[in-house]
Amino acid sequence: TSVKKIVVLRGDYIGPEIMTAGLAVLEAATRNEAFAYKLIDAPFGGDGIDRAGDPLPQSTINIAKQADAVLLSAIGGPKWDNMSRRPEQGLLEIRSQLNLFANIRPTKVTSAQIDRSPLKPEYVKNTDFVIVRELTSGAYFGKPRKLEEHQAIDTIYYNEEEVTRIMHQGFKMAQKRKKHVTIVDKSNVLATSKFWRKIANEVGKNYPDVAIDYYYVDAMTMAIMSKPAIFDVVIMPNLFGDILSDEAAQITGSIGQIPSMSIGENGPNLYEPIHGSAPDIAGQGIANPISMVNTIAMMLTESFDEKSIADKMTAAVNYIIENHYVTPDMGGVMTTNEVTQKMVDYIKKHELAATK
Amino acid sequence: TSVKKIVVLRGDYIGPEIMTAGLAVLEAATRNEAFAYKLIDAPFGGDGIDRAGDPLPQSTINIAKQADAVLLSAIGGPKWDNMSRRPEQGLLEIRSQLNLFANIRPTKVTSAQIDRSPLKPEYVKNTDFVIVRELTSGAYFGKPRKLEEHQAIDTIYYNEEEVTRIMHQGFKMAQKRKKHVTIVDKSNVLATSKFWRKIANEVGKNYPDVAIDYYYVDAMTMAIMSKPAIFDVVIMPNLFGDILSDEAAQITGSIGQIPSMSIGENGPNLYEPIHGSAPDIAGQGIANPISMVNTIAMMLTESFDEKSIADKMTAAVNYIIENHYVTPDMGGVMTTNEVTQKMVDYIKKHELAATK
Ligand SMILES: CC(C)[C@H](C(=O)O)[C@@H](O)C(=O)O
Ligand SMILES: CC(C)[C@H](C(=O)O)[C@@H](O)C(=O)O
Repeated sequence: TSVKKIVVLRGDYIGPEIMTAGLAVLEAATRNEAFAYKLIDAPFGGDGIDRAGDPLPQSTINIAKQADAVLLSAIGGPKWDNMSRRPEQGLLEIRSQLNLFANIRPTKVTSAQIDRSPLKPEYVKNTDFVIVRELTSGAYFGKPRKLEEHQAIDTIYYNEEEVTRIMHQGFKMAQKRKKHVTIVDKSNVLATSKFWRKIANEVGKNYPDVAIDYYYVDAMTMAIMSKPAIFDVVIMPNLFGDILSDEAAQITGSIGQIPSMSIGENGPNLYEPIHGSAPDIAGQGIANPISMVNTIAMMLTESFDEKSIADKMTAAVNYIIENHYVTPDMGGVMTTNEVTQKMVDYIKKHELAATK
Repeated sequence: TSVKKIVVLRGDYIGPEIMTAGLAVLEAATRNEAFAYKLIDAPFGGDGIDRAGDPLPQSTINIAKQADAVLLSAIGGPKWDNMSRRPEQGLLEIRSQLNLFANIRPTKVTSAQIDRSPLKPEYVKNTDFVIVRELTSGAYFGKPRKLEEHQAIDTIYYNEEEVTRIMHQGFKMAQKRKKHVTIVDKSNVLATSKFWRKIANEVGKNYPDVAIDYYYVDAMTMAIMSKPAIFDVVIMPNLFGDILSDEAAQITGSIGQIPSMSIGENGPNLYEPIHGSAPDIAGQGIANPISMVNTIAMMLTESFDEKSIADKMTAAVNYIIENHYVTPDMGGVMTTNEVTQKMVDYIKKHELAATK
């Protein structure tokens, strides 16, 4: 088997701290495995501005296009907020350049973690859905987009190919899960949403084994809170997906743990934690590494079909949570390094036991 | 004092049921008062289609423009879903024609009602904020808006006057409340949001006694759930306001009780409950009348400066909630009529006691 090329975009503020942690756990988990990988560091985001003068240097795009997967940590922060090309601009452009048309975010509430939710347990129990967010069109990329002195304009645009593609993605995922797709839109007002719903309906006919229902985006914010357990795969346009996937993350109460995958059309997928770069706690060595470990595990499963290695990593995550070897954001007293070491030790011990 | 003209748009499905209930309570509360009003029925929404061939007949607009206030119940439903001009179209047009530029929705969690929230009490306690939603521009009205065979387009548009006006509205309200304004936008991506934030900042300088903070719309969905009590007045563009005001309503767990006001520029305000027309329970006589009673109380206070009459109505609402004289949606066994009669009786008894 060939050596997998993983481009590492280490990110800003706590970004590099959790990236280092996640890669240490990856190393421990792959030590006795045939799986071979090569990490390729590239500047991106604020780090791209600092090291190469741009949030998305051309060299980074070139390298990323030839990679087997792209691993990204959180980016952005006050240091670059007043620049004309901010770190976030790099994120929008890499999505576009790598054709990362679908962003996948799991929302799962396990019984071990149910107490972390701000919702009462009876509302949130058994929640297990994924949001499939369209990522390269819609309000984020439509033209014209103009900021003038006395007015401003954005455009929401969707064409048939874009909507059809994301629908197939969502319906295929549903076939492997609970066979239920929910379409979110604002089709009682927006033309793009009417279009979105019409195509959803047509594509749905190819998946007779999958049930479809439709929610207006406003009603969906209520359903995510009042009956999250009824959902399976929820497909949303770019802007609505941005908004509602954060709400969905919040109901778990565990934003510092959630990974995401952006699926590339004819190219590598990109993996990243869903949380931000947390400038307020950067440099203190207390960032929570769990999201990055889960992100790498997601990459192993989805891009490299290495589920058993991923399972080692998630077992290590479960181990530290159960034993409360966690960082302050989770009510613990450990540093990033200590938590990481606990995960590495757990994996080593587990392997030793297995080879004896 | 002159007789106030109130245009009554009775609405669809449960709409007329709760309108009748609310007006009965209004009648009881005004019986011994100098306040005089005249109700003018006009067709609108699905009822407009049925009675006058259009969701917003010209005659209704003419009458509404000359009214002192417009009282609306919930509209829309499956009966008219496949029409080219649906009831919702009437709603968008009346907003535009009456220049209802600001939609105000209170989100309050009292200790009596805290248990109804899907959120744990420690998250939701002391919540008391209002959403100020821009209502006549943005993604709802921007042109071009096109639904073609292979693509679709919507436009988000804002000009200086529109944004300035809504900001002054919000800042003025904050001055009478907790002196804190929160601006919600997506200024890291959208041009209209950059514009929105820039004007917010400028207008804010006229209100040095009011503190401002800024949230991205995605982060705001998390804050509404994780720390709702920190907010006071939250100003949002039309589409974000639609989405997040439903989330905010859901955290109270009492959607069937929340009123709203849409402020007219040079014309009457429009008052309506925030919930929908509930086709599933229409005709059974079990619709919850509380939202409509609260809506009428809001009208009395805001349009007619009749706070003491409004207080009688809300006292009646508190009385039925405390004594659990409520409809099935609130866990009770009473009909709409029974609940309404309890409120009417309470007001009468209270008045008798006062005049003795
Ligand atoms: C940082 C920002 C541009 C980005 C987005 O809006 O897509 C983020 O919120 C996300 O969800 O990945
Ligand atoms: C019915 C619909 C057109 C309306 C809107 O989107 O504004 C409703 O959701 C609301 O919030 O009043």
